[in-house]
Parts: sequence; C-alpha cells; structure tokens
Amino acid sequence: MTTELSSYWTDAGLLSPVRVGSPVEEVTTDAAWLQALLAAEAALIPAQARLGLVPERAAEAISALARAERLPLRELAERTRGAANPVVSVVQAFTAVVAAADPQAADYVHRGSTSQDILDTAAMLVTRRAGTLLLADLDRVAAALAGLAERHRDTPMAGRTLGLHAVPTTFGLKAAGWLQAVTDAAGRLRSLLEGGLPVELGGAAGTLAGYVEYARIHQEQGVPGALDPQEYARRLIAGYAAETGLSEPVLPWHAVRTPVAETGSVLALVTGALGKIAVDVQVLCRTEIAELAEPAAGGRGVSSAMPHKRNPALATLIRSAALQVPPLAMVLAQSMVAEDERSAGVWHAEWLPMRECLRLAGGAAHTAVELVEGLQVFPERMGTNLELTRGLLVSERIAAVLTPVLGKDGARKLMDAASAEAAEREVTLGAVLAEHPRAAELFDAGRLADLLDPAQYTGAAGMLVDRALAHYRGRLHK
Amino acid sequence: MTTELSSYWTDAGLLSPVRVGSPVEEVTTDAAWLQALLAAEAALIPAQARLGLVPERAAEAISALARAERLPLRELAERTRGAANPVVSVVQAFTAVVAAADPQAADYVHRGSTSQDILDTAAMLVTRRAGTLLLADLDRVAAALAGLAERHRDTPMAGRTLGLHAVPTTFGLKAAGWLQAVTDAAGRLRSLLEGGLPVELGGAAGTLAGYVEYARIHQEQGVPGALDPQEYARRLIAGYAAETGLSEPVLPWHAVRTPVAETGSVLALVTGALGKIAVDVQVLCRTEIAELAEPAAGGRGVSSAMPHKRNPALATLIRSAALQVPPLAMVLAQSMVAEDERSAGVWHAEWLPMRECLRLAGGAAHTAVELVEGLQVFPERMGTNLELTRGLLVSERIAAVLTPVLGKDGARKLMDAASAEAAEREVTLGAVLAEHPRAAELFDAGRLADLLDPAQYTGAAGMLVDRALAHYRGRLHK
Amino acid sequence: MTTELSSYWTDAGLLSPVRVGSPVEEVTTDAAWLQALLAAEAALIPAQARLGLVPERAAEAISALARAERLPLRELAERTRGAANPVVSVVQAFTAVVAAADPQAADYVHRGSTSQDILDTAAMLVTRRAGTLLLADLDRVAAALAGLAERHRDTPMAGRTLGLHAVPTTFGLKAAGWLQAVTDAAGRLRSLLEGGLPVELGGAAGTLAGYVEYARIHQEQGVPGALDPQEYARRLIAGYAAETGLSEPVLPWHAVRTPVAETGSVLALVTGALGKIAVDVQVLCRTEIAELAEPAAGGRGVSSAMPHKRNPALATLIRSAALQVPPLAMVLAQSMVAEDERSAGVWHAEWLPMRECLRLAGGAAHTAVELVEGLQVFPERMGTNLELTRGLLVSERIAAVLTPVLGKDGARKLMDAASAEAAEREVTLGAVLAEHPRAAELFDAGRLADLLDPAQYTGAAGMLVDRALAHYRGRLHK
Amino acid sequence: MTTELSSYWTDAGLLSPVRVGSPVEEVTTDAAWLQALLAAEAALIPAQARLGLVPERAAEAISALARAERLPLRELAERTRGAANPVVSVVQAFTAVVAAADPQAADYVHRGSTSQDILDTAAMLVTRRAGTLLLADLDRVAAALAGLAERHRDTPMAGRTLGLHAVPTTFGLKAAGWLQAVTDAAGRLRSLLEGGLPVELGGAAGTLAGYVEYARIHQEQGVPGALDPQEYARRLIAGYAAETGLSEPVLPWHAVRTPVAETGSVLALVTGALGKIAVDVQVLCRTEIAELAEPAAGGRGVSSAMPHKRNPALATLIRSAALQVPPLAMVLAQSMVAEDERSAGVWHAEWLPMRECLRLAGGAAHTAVELVEGLQVFPERMGTNLELTRGLLVSERIAAVLTPVLGKDGARKLMDAASAEAAEREVTLGAVLAEHPRAAELFDAGRLADLLDPAQYTGAAGMLVDRALAHYRGRLHK
Repeated sequence: MTTELSSYWTDAGLLSPVRVGSPVEEVTTDAAWLQALLAAEAALIPAQARLGLVPERAAEAISALARAERLPLRELAERTRGAANPVVSVVQAFTAVVAAADPQAADYVHRGSTSQDILDTAAMLVTRRAGTLLLADLDRVAAALAGLAERHRDTPMAGRTLGLHAVPTTFGLKAAGWLQAVTDAAGRLRSLLEGGLPVELGGAAGTLAGYVEYARIHQEQGVPGALDPQEYARRLIAGYAAETGLSEPVLPWHAVRTPVAETGSVLALVTGALGKIAVDVQVLCRTEIAELAEPAAGGRGVSSAMPHKRNPALATLIRSAALQVPPLAMVLAQSMVAEDERSAGVWHAEWLPMRECLRLAGGAAHTAVELVEGLQVFPERMGTNLELTRGLLVSERIAAVLTPVLGKDGARKLMDAASAEAAEREVTLGAVLAEHPRAAELFDAGRLADLLDPAQYTGAAGMLVDRALAHYRGRLHK
Repeated sequence: MTTELSSYWTDAGLLSPVRVGSPVEEVTTDAAWLQALLAAEAALIPAQARLGLVPERAAEAISALARAERLPLRELAERTRGAANPVVSVVQAFTAVVAAADPQAADYVHRGSTSQDILDTAAMLVTRRAGTLLLADLDRVAAALAGLAERHRDTPMAGRTLGLHAVPTTFGLKAAGWLQAVTDAAGRLRSLLEGGLPVELGGAAGTLAGYVEYARIHQEQGVPGALDPQEYARRLIAGYAAETGLSEPVLPWHAVRTPVAETGSVLALVTGALGKIAVDVQVLCRTEIAELAEPAAGGRGVSSAMPHKRNPALATLIRSAALQVPPLAMVLAQSMVAEDERSAGVWHAEWLPMRECLRLAGGAAHTAVELVEGLQVFPERMGTNLELTRGLLVSERIAAVLTPVLGKDGARKLMDAASAEAAEREVTLGAVLAEHPRAAELFDAGRLADLLDPAQYTGAAGMLVDRALAHYRGRLHK
Repeated sequence: MTTELSSYWTDAGLLSPVRVGSPVEEVTTDAAWLQALLAAEAALIPAQARLGLVPERAAEAISALARAERLPLRELAERTRGAANPVVSVVQAFTAVVAAADPQAADYVHRGSTSQDILDTAAMLVTRRAGTLLLADLDRVAAALAGLAERHRDTPMAGRTLGLHAVPTTFGLKAAGWLQAVTDAAGRLRSLLEGGLPVELGGAAGTLAGYVEYARIHQEQGVPGALDPQEYARRLIAGYAAETGLSEPVLPWHAVRTPVAETGSVLALVTGALGKIAVDVQVLCRTEIAELAEPAAGGRGVSSAMPHKRNPALATLIRSAALQVPPLAMVLAQSMVAEDERSAGVWHAEWLPMRECLRLAGGAAHTAVELVEGLQVFPERMGTNLELTRGLLVSERIAAVLTPVLGKDGARKLMDAASAEAAEREVTLGAVLAEHPRAAELFDAGRLADLLDPAQYTGAAGMLVDRALAHYRGRLHK
Repeated sequence: MTTELSSYWTDAGLLSPVRVGSPVEEVTTDAAWLQALLAAEAALIPAQARLGLVPERAAEAISALARAERLPLRELAERTRGAANPVVSVVQAFTAVVAAADPQAADYVHRGSTSQDILDTAAMLVTRRAGTLLLADLDRVAAALAGLAERHRDTPMAGRTLGLHAVPTTFGLKAAGWLQAVTDAAGRLRSLLEGGLPVELGGAAGTLAGYVEYARIHQEQGVPGALDPQEYARRLIAGYAAETGLSEPVLPWHAVRTPVAETGSVLALVTGALGKIAVDVQVLCRTEIAELAEPAAGGRGVSSAMPHKRNPALATLIRSAALQVPPLAMVLAQSMVAEDERSAGVWHAEWLPMRECLRLAGGAAHTAVELVEGLQVFPERMGTNLELTRGLLVSERIAAVLTPVLGKDGARKLMDAASAEAAEREVTLGAVLAEHPRAAELFDAGRLADLLDPAQYTGAAGMLVDRALAHYRGRLHK
C-alpha cells in the first residue's frame, strides 16, 4: 500500500516515458515553474532597489521569501482561472507571505508590473535552465557520435536509399551524418541560450508606464539622484536582465513573440536530429538486418509477451518525442500572430507546448546519450549484408569503368544485361562478368575482384568523416 | 507553509488553467490512467473465466486487487523506460500484489496478453469516461445557446464580415450558428462514444495466438466443453468488449489506428466549435463594441496591473485550448502511418496528445458552460452600434429596391454616390436620400425610414433561428 | 523547342508526382475551380426562377454561358487581390459575358448573393466530384486488398513489433488490416459525400437578406403567387441544394465551418489508411526482407544512379502524400475558429489546403490502386524469414505449453535459458529443447516440431481474416 | 472566347490571391523549378571540367542547352511517377537534347550524380532566388514601418490587452513592435541566404563514389595533373558550390535535412511577423475602432454584396498566408526524421511544402509592402477612443500616485470605489475624483487633469521607439 496517490495530481510521466528521469524533467515541473515565477517576481526588487526605488531592506526580505514551497500549488492553480493566467494568484499569495513577514516590503511586490512580465521572464528562466541541461546531453551525444564516426571511419556497410541497397557507404559516414545534425542543432541551441532568451519587462501594455511612474514621482519629489524617467526605464531593463541573467531585449515582447517561436524551432531541430538517429537505429536493428543493437541493460527492451525480444526501446522513446515536438513547436510559431498589446488566448496557448517541447526534447537527448554511448555495432554483419545483392551494389562502379571504353549507353546496356543475368541465375555479378567476353577482356580476375569489392567502393567517405570531425572539433573549441 | 511540494511531480494545471477543476481533469490524471490499465488487465480475467480458462476464484481475487492506490506510481513510471511503455512495469507490480494475496491467481494475470492490448483498452476506457463528461458539458452549452438563440431571435445587431459592418443580423442567429456548431460536434462525439471506442485484443502481433494457445491446450487436454480455439477467440473478443463496455472491433487494431485518429478529429471539432464562440465573444466584448460581457464573478477577469478591467477570461481560456487541440489531434491522425504489427515510436507518440486533447477539450467545454450560461447581452448597445455607419449598413437593401426602377447599374451608381456623399458630409444615408430628387420621388419619408431601419432588414434570420432550434431539439429527442 | 512554357503558370505536378495523372488532378485545377464557381453562380438562377423571381429566359441564357473557357483565368486571378477572393472578379467578368449576349439577363447574375455563397458552394462541388473519383479508387484498393487477404489467408509470415520478429502472423491478416483501414476511411468518405457537403446560401452576412429582399419586393408588388419572404428563403435553400445536388444545410455556414473541417479529417483518414499500407510495403520490400515487391512496369522505380535498383516508387509516392495531408487537414480544422459572420483571413486560408488535400489524397488512392492490384508477394521468402530467429519466434508458445507443468515462473525461466543458449550456440531453439532433459520428457520429437512450426502458431489469424472480409462485403452490399 | 484554358494545368493563383503578382510567384513556378533543375545539372559540368574531368567544349555545349523551354514540362511531370521524383525524366530528356546537338557531350550529363544532388541543389537555388526577392520586400516593409514608428513616435492611442483598453500606448510603439518582428525575421532570412543554403553533392548514397570513380580512373590512367580522388572530392564540392553560388556543406545532406527545416522555420518567422501586423491592422480597422484604414486603391476591398464596405483586403491576404505557413514549415521540420541514406517518402514530401512556404511568404511580404507603405493612420480617432473609458485607462497611474500617501491597499481601495462610481454614474473618473474629499486634497484641478491625460501616461514609449529605430538602423548598416 503506497501513499503515492496522496497527491492525486501527480504527473509521474506514466504516459511519457521518454522524459522520465531526465534532468530536464525536474526543472520543468509545475513546482519548478512556480519557483521561476517567484524568481522573476523577486528579481524585480533588486533591479528597482539599485536605482533607488525600493529600500534595500525590502529587497532582501522579498528575495528570501521567494520560495515555491511556501505556496499552495494546487490551490494557486485553481485560482488561475479568474485571470486566465497563474500570475495574479501567485502574486496575491506571495504578497501575503511577504506581508506576514514584513508588511512594508509587501507594497513593493509586483509594483508597476504586469502578469506577462513575470510569466514570460519565468518561461525564459525555465527555458534557459532546461536548455542548458539539454545542451549538456547533446554535447555528450555529439562526443559519442564523434567516437563512433572515428572508430568506424572505414567500416563498410550498405548504403540504403528508398529502403534498398544502393551503393556501399561506411558506418563512420552514417555516424558523421548524425553528428553533423546534432552539432548543428546544438549550435543553434547554444546561440539561443547565449542571447535569444530575453527578460520581459513592459508593464501593462508594454510602455513600462507602471514602472516609470514611480520614477517620475521620485523625480517630482526631488529625491537626490533621481533619474530622468526615460533613463530610468532604460536602466531598469538592463538591471532586470542582469539580475536574471537573461538577455536584454530591444523592446518589450508581449506581442512580438520571436523568442518563443525561435525556442520552438530550435527544439524541433534538436528532436529532428535525434529522431533521425532513432529511425536509422531502428532500421539497422531489424531482425533481418541486425547491424546494430541497443545497449543491453537490465529490463531494457523487455516485451510483456515475448521472452526472446530485445526491443530497440531507446530509439523508440526518442522517435516518440521527435513525432510530437514539431506540432507543438508549430503552436509556438503560430503564437506570433497575436492581436493587440497582449492577445486573448494566443499567449495562453504557449505555456503547455513550450513546457512539453522542453520535456520531450530534454528526454530525447538524455535517452540518446544512453543509446549512442552504448550502441553495439556489428561490422561483420554489415559485411555479410554487403554481399546480399551479389555484387549489384557496385554495378554503378563497373558501369563507370566501362564507360570510357563502351560509351555511356554501351556500358549501361552491358550492365543491365549482366545484372539481369546475375539475378536470374542467382549468381554474383562477378561470376557473370567473368564469363562475359568483353568484360573478361577488360579486367583480369584480380582487378575484377577489386572493382567488385564493396569495401573498395566507398568513394570519399573517409574524407567526409574527417571533415565532419574537424567541423565538430572546430565548433567545440570555438 | 504548505506541504504541496511533497509530491514534486504534481501537475496542478498551473500552465493549463483551462482545465483546472473540470470534470475531465480528474479522470485523465496519471492515477486515473493507472487505474484504467488495471481495469483493462482485470477485465481479461472474467472474460477468460466465463469461457472456462480461468478459475472463478482467481478472477474474483484479481478484480478485487486491481486498485491503482496499491501501486507506486512514480516508481512505475521510472520503470517504463525499459519497455518504452508503462504496461510491463505495471503488470510486474500488479502480479506481485496478486501473488502476495493469492499466488495461484497471479499466474493468470496478463496471460496470453501483450502491452498494447492493455494500454489501448485503457486509453479507450479513459476516453469513454472523459468523453461522457465532456458530452454532458457540451449538452449544457447547447441548451444555454438554444436559450440565447430563442431569447434573442429578433434582437438586431450588426453583421460583421472582414471586421466591418456588412448588413444587419440578429444576435439570435449568431447564437444559432454557435448552437449548430456545438450540436454537430456533440453529435459526432456521441457517435464515437456509442460505437467508435473498441476494446483492443490481439496478443503479441494481433493474431490472438497467446490467448488461443491456452484454449488449444484446454481442448487438447480434453476438458469437457472446451471450445474450438477459433470459436474461443471470437467469443473472447466479444466477452472482453462486454466486460469493459467498449465496442467490439472487427480486427485487433494494434496497427490500424482509426479509433485514435477519429478521437482526435472529433475533439478538434469540439474545440473548433467552442473556439468559434470564444473569438466572437472576444470581439463583442471589445471596449469599443461592448455588446456582450462575460459573467461577472469574484476575481474573474482581474488584471494584475489594471484595476478597472474585466477581461474576457473564460473566452480566453477556451481559445487557448482551441489553438492547441488541432495540432495534437494531427499527431493522432499521423499515428495511422505506423509500420509493422506494432510501430516503434508512432504508437508511443499517441499517449500524451490523446490525454492532452481530452483535457483541453474537456476544460474548454466546462469553461464554455460557465461562459454561455452567464453571458451578458446588451441589446441597446447592439442597437447603438447599428447606427454607426449612418445607414450604410442597409445600402444593399436600398440598391435592391432601386434596381427594378433604375436597373442594376443605375441603382448601384446612385447608391455609390449617396454613400460617398453621406460619408463626406458625415450625415446619414437617409438624409442624403431624402434630398435626392430621384429617391425622394420613389419613397416617402415613412417608407424610407422603414427601408433604412436595420431592424427591418434581417432577412430570414428569424426563420433560420427557428430551424436551428428545431434541428437541435430533433437531435435531442432522437 | 516545345511550346509548353507558353503558359508560364503551368502547374504540371513536377513537385507532386503522386497526383500526376490521377482522376482527381483534373477536377481540381484552377480551371475546374473556375468552372465550379460558374456552376455555383449559374445554379442560383434556376433556383430563383422556379420561385418566380427570375424569368426562365434569363435563366437559360445564363446557364448556357457559364463556361470557364470564356473567361481569362490568369487575368481573373490577378484581379482577385482587390477583394481578397476570386468571386468578385469572376462575377464581374461573367456578368460582362452575359451582358454581351443578353443585357437583361445580366441583371440577375449574383443577385442577392455574396462571394462566400459562391465560393463555398463551388468548393463543395469540387469536393464532391473529387471525392467521388477518390472513392472509386478506394473501392478498387479495397477490392484488391480483399483479394490479397483471401488468397493469403493462411500464408505465414513473421509478425514484427518494434522492428523485430515477435510471433508469426499471416500475410492475409496483414492485408485484412489494410483492408479494414481502407474500408473505414471509404465509409467515412461515403457518408461525407452522401450528406456532409452542403450548399452555401446566406447572402452578405448569413441572413439571406439580399435574396429575401427581392421576394419582399415581389410580394409588395402584388405579383400573383408571390411567396411570403420567409417561406421563399426556406424554399430557395432547398431549391439551390436540389439544383446543385448538394445537401441542404440547417443554417448558412459562412462562419460555422464544420463541413470544411470534416472534409479535412476524412481525407486525413484516407491518406492515413493508405500511408499505413505504404510503410508496410516499404519495410517488406527492403533488400534484406524481400517478402514483397512493387509491380514491375516500364521505367518504374528506376534510379538515376543505380541500374540494379527497383525502388518502391509507388509506396514512396503514397507515403509522401500521407505525410502532407494531416497538417493541411489541420489548417481546415483550425479554420473553425473564425471570428464574426465572415472571418478576415481564416476563410481565405482554407482554399489551398482543401485543394491540396483532395489532390494528394486522390493521387495517393490512384497510386494505391496500382500498388495493391499488382503487388508481388513472395510466400517462400516469408517462410525463409520465419526461420531467422531459429525458433525463438514461437518461444511464447512453448512457454505457454510449459506453464501448466512448470508454473508461469518455471516456464519462463526454462525458456529464457533455452533462448539464451540457442542464441549463444547459434542453434535452433528446437535443438536446445531436444537436448533439455525436462523438455524432452514432456514432448516427443514430432510434437516438438509441431509446436515449433511457425505456420502452426498463427492463432486466430484465419478467423480474423474471414471476419474482415465479411465486414467488407457487408459494407459493400449495404 | 479566350485561349487561357489551352493550358489546362494553369495554376493562375485563383485559390491563393496573396501571392498573385508577387515577385516570388514567378520564380517558384514549375517552369522555374525545371530551370533550376537544369541549372543544377549544368553547373556540375564546369565544376568537373575545371578539375580536368570533362572537356571544356562539352561543358559549354551543355550549359548553353540547359533551358527549360526546350523540355516538355507536363510530359516530364507525367514521367516523374516512375522514379517518384522528377530528376530521372528531366535527365533523360535533357540528355536527349544535348545528344541531338553534341553526342559526345551527352555522356557527361549527370555523370556520377544522383537525383537528390540535382533536386536538392535546385531547391536551394529556387530558395535563394525567392528568398532574395522576399528579403527585398521585407526590407521595404521594415523601412515603411520605421517611418511609421518615427512619425507616430508620440501619437497616443489605447493599449489593448485581452481585447480591452488597458493603459495608453503610442502608435509609434506599436509600429516599432512590428518593425522589431520584421527586422528579426529579415535578419534570420539574411543569415540563411548568406550561408545556410548549401549545394548538395553526394552521389547515390552520399559518399560521392560516383564522382570519385571517374577521378580514380583518371588517376589510374596516369593523366597528368590527375588529383588524388579524395582531394578531387573535396575540390569538387567547393567547385560546385562556387559554380552555383551556394554555400559549401560539411557533408552531403541527403539525410541530414537541417537546411530544409531551417528554411521552413525562417519562413514561418517571416509570416509570423507579417501576420502580427495583419491582425493588428484588422482590429484597428474595425468599424467601431477605425483608427487605421488600408490604402485605398481602385477595386481594393470591394465587396461583391455591399457597396459601402472597404474591406481590409491586404491584411486579410497576409493573415491567410500566416495561417498556412507554420503547418507547412512543420512538414519540413518533420522531414528531418528520415530513415537511411535517402528516405522513401519523407524527402518527397518536402517539395510542395517548400514551394508553398516560399510563395505564401513571398506573397505576404509583397502584400505587406503595399499595406504598410500606404497605411492610413487616424490620430484624432485614436484620441477619441482614448476617452472611451472616461479616464479608467489611467487608473493604474492614479493608484500609483496615491500609493505613497495611502499605502498600496488604501490607494487601490479608493481607486476601485472611484472607478465603480464613474461607471455607475456614467461620468469620468476625473469628475469623481474632483468631488472626492481625499483626492481633491491631494491634487488641484490642473494636476489632476495632467495625471488623467492619456497622452501624458505613455511611460517610456518614446524611448522604446528610439531604441527600436536605432536597432533597425544598426542592423541596416552592419
């Protein structure tokens, strides 16, 4: 008999295994959002205090009290409906907490502010924290992929297009492609974290009038050192950014939702890159292909019905996230089309998708670390599979070699005939060509064997792997 | 100091106020899903017992123990990752619970079954329960709308197209349009609940082989009354459907995801209908328009910054849901394209969007009850606004009346000139026409006043309202 | 030197091969839409004439002239921008055509009407025509699938879940699953075509005031037999529906977009069902699996680089459509949230996605006919692949058989050990079990061979196929 | 009788007025794509020629013949189905054209290449050309917005949140917000154009083996100056990039679809920014608000039914595009999850959405130029509307001024009472306060009038406008 259900509202992740236990999960709970709302609220105080508008003492009192565990989470949520956003009830409850400890300080809570200043800033704080953890996992994924690319730089395998063997490639080049996608996504995420997450500060309609009014009164009262209100506004934005560690926006962005849309598109890029790895792993784990296996671990990939199976559970989880994030990110892109100084509903539709994008992307990245760090690669099986088409995999090459001699058309005709014959007789292309008078004339047996060896027809794969690794390392040390 | 955070994983709805406190919220929590998983698991036992495959005693023991509160929710979630779905860990934990009470009964838990049988059936159970609650709220919304349509059958207001006054309409017709959308959506939801939510039963790959094998052994053992295995399979599907109250599918639908896609599209229809109401309410609540107001209630619509505002908070919440559901429903539509007998990731991407669609639609419907039942309508203000265009609103009518006399072109030319003159001189169209020699000749003052009266140019609005009400009532009594 | 580029605006389908040459393509061109606009416009005339409001002569003249080829398509498109919709310029041009032939008749064109009446009605006409063609192709797909299901009712193959062999199934059951999905989708499309495509008739703001005014004037003029205007409106809706063959709506649906959203969701269901087939075909065509092949045809599946490949081109085309339709259908679902009596932009965003959904679904269905009618099935290869896991595919069965003897735990332990041993020694499960003292005691060699035969462990697959066929045939004859 | 329908396949834009006549429309037709395919094909020749692999003469011949008008567009489209992509048929037809003129040159067409090299490169060429035109329009939009922001820096208007008047703002600040969104989007587009559109070059499976083989043969033949094949591959990528003017990718990106996903997200950002302007314009054009009007122009905004209306047609067109682009861009984001070295269908689903994103965004930008350059602004009306709430719009300010005297609670209580009284008596807040003993004590009449003047409560709006203009200009001169 457990007590787990004492909180009926537990979101344990039962329906979203991909994120369970990931670092991002913990920093995106309702409790974490509540803490971020309080942090956004609290950071306003020192920003104003430093400009002389709030007594230092009040600032300290307020900061010390801004702890989510002091507030009744579900009760707050129940009261969110009145204002259609959680800030009003949070501010009321928090003000009461402050007033109980320091009645005068309470007057400074949320002064001049508006719900959107707090919620948007909190969203950016959550995004930065989650994004930083996600980036750390992406960096681990990239490092593991770089290792795979390097180790398997020259491991030949079948290149597959439209599901069929096309020409040979290397597993190193495949891993390099994954690395490239992850590196690009990580680069975009890094840029976002470094400058694309602005503090929100605008007051009721984005003019900062509420904040500025207090500065004007100050100035009017002749307080020594009182700033010109416009200058005050400028410094307040900068000060709030400094206090929260977020970037300084050109304008309040209540109704200019670029940062939100960008966050969505970066996270879709992240899950796109990871999802690509996942579907490739799934293909290569197929019973008939068996070139890869997921890392074995206690209970992993266990089927409830089939004792013998080792399901590609990690890739499955990652893919499930990659299918969900783009539509959620699209909601964030659509949120740009928001009327007025603050929309009636479009803004409100951002919160869940943003949280879910972070959780799913964070979960996918964390899961991908486990997948790629422990990925089992079976080069012999890759080699066996390379033989499946009995040499047809390199028919492009033989055609090329024949072209200077027979012309493009002649070469193609010969190869078409030889391929058809090999298929019909169920022998290798090499066997057919060895018997073919014209071909036999052109190539001796050794030369033919070399030309037909898939491992010797991987083009510039090695150079490309080196290039991807150099690019990855260049980025790292930048 | 509260203890709310003792459960760090609380999803209080802080980021989704639209659903907080709605009936659907309670039946879609992780705990409710867990309970549904156990219910799906438990219902297999009597279904098999009735066909002689499980002792009655075991069936009773298992049923009695299938209570979510016996299982450690978060711990289960943590163990979901191994199998990429929650069923494996739930079955293990539940089997242990049963084994502790009745070791022999434990052997019958999940016998012949597969994760997807349990999870899909549970999803349908949750959907049915949530859908039923949602439908009750939709029915209340429809009833309130019918009342509005009836009461305001002849309340004239400006018809607006592309944001501008076009010709008069009635508020009754507007409400009838809302009613029609809601009635259609409720009708589709009712159909879904009545036959579109099938039990899932297929075993590991949809052949029912696991279940059938036990029947075969039974038959082989010469148990009296043992059924032919194929017949057994047929009856087992029917019995499981009967036991759960869900419908009986033609085939196992592990990889034929029509029920899931349909659920999504019905829920998008629901939020589409409610979202239409919401955006209309928002327009008509605008400060400059002020023809409607949301029901006043303590704390509702309060702004954190502006004491005088009464925000259309309910409409805002509804619209926020209407923006999120179609993309989530689209994920469910995309889930149809799932490879193999069970997909590696596509199935897994259904769970969150399905739950979220239910919660958002359920929240929107519950919020809409409050909105439409208490909606404040201001007919005088509608009347005042009808005068804003100084008669141009009925220019279409005057043009029609003039057409038999002046021809289509002549009529239009006269009206274009009169409209332009009215606009330029800032007088009413009536004033211009009264002075116009040709028009004055055609209409005396009283007739002109009648023709220019917006309230007398509402076309067939009354008949249409009656028609929508008749359709609504016909559906009700069907 | 060809003259193809003489029309610079040709949309030949270069970027959308899936629809090139399909029947739906032809009925969804701009020219076909223009024709539908004229048909919608023209059908208003007899509907009004039958109620005495338009002279019969005019009606005939107008009908005869309503031919798209009389109008300059690109020029019309260029003039659409002024009104943000194509109807205004089409009406102007068409009126001029009529006026040139019969000046008096011209006065009756578009009388009382509004752009949305015409465009929505035209959209329904196009949808009906395209939908009917699409349904015919779906019916052919279903017939071919029924044939496959029947022919391969007992063809064993590996059932695959999460990409791995799970337990045996039959190709017949797989085809029956495809059939079920297609039958469901076709059923929904049939319902839509039979009653879900309403004529649009509402006038400027949905009150029918423009139409009704002429009836009122008529009545006022004492024309014998003149109808009461409300009665006139009722009959006009019915008459317009009869004239166009579309269904009669309860209300004008200018701003109640259920028919549009429904059309989208039905088409997504269609491509979902076809997309499921496509991804399954692709998996089973893979070089390593090779259980299916697409029908061979001149030039089909040709690679520009690799002479030996036969790409699954048809499945690829179908899948490309299945990936695009749900997002486009979502735009149609989102179109329900449209403000006012006619939205400023939401309505306008419907046209392209609706056309594209039709074209892509129509193309996918037409392509699927070719795919499933000519699909090559290789039962021997299915048999060979069934041996790949060396008996592990039926381990579930052996565990079931052992359970009554060894208990659930005991059976599972034995099977886990035997499976591991078979894998390690690279021998079959049968070989391991034959040597196992306890197992050997339980089964003689013949019995063990039977139990291990995948073809004998297909559960209720045969019964399920029969069931799906019966359901399909029942639907057909309904 | 026109001949327009001679080309039945004309896509005149009838269903997409937003893009009709825009510069992007012309460069995204099928004909333009065909030309881009030929350009991509042709550019391979000089790139190879410069490395000694193709005779200069052949290169010249091929380049000269790469003209779309030489090829039968619709016929090519019909032949695309065989290969599921248009390149195979284009290469065949183009090779025939070349062969007719110079049989030897024909052998060099598409040598070593693959469909995806050509189509992806062509897509980037089209994107660059369209993007450049789009950017030029965005730059004009930004310039016009900067002008509006500057001219109306101090034009007070009501700030609206959740549809209601909140506090005053300025039209300059609103325009500055639009400018900021457009500047950000243009900045991202500029970056994409400057480095994010890579040439595609990989051969059949991304190893460049086909190209490299010819270099190897060259080297083997001992041709003087023959490069090492790996070095050749490196130079070939660089040379192809130089030849096309596209950027050089780290790796072939056949299955690493970052450039495609990025293109989509940038275009969604563009239409998001423009859509924001559109919905704001629509609100402010509403009959009751009337603070803005779209530029008047012959036929613009004409209603087919209502002679007096001037519909906000341009904003409507822009919004229709903004509703469609995010879902299409999402398809591009989803395209990252593509299996193998080339996906069977995911790649193929990119082409239509990419073209449509370009056309819709290009059309929206071009339409926006017209909208913002000619936007009519009515400052007096803005002033009149500011009075609608009878002073409540500045209640936040009065509360702030009273706070130092009465405390936060006291101030709020007084203001709540005064606001309620003003509403009930239908007088201004000023009138109530003037009669209020405590308030009258604090403010003399002049001071009260100043405090209540909305134009004097615009906070830091002026500073913020300056800041946005400085940012815009800084970007320009960067």
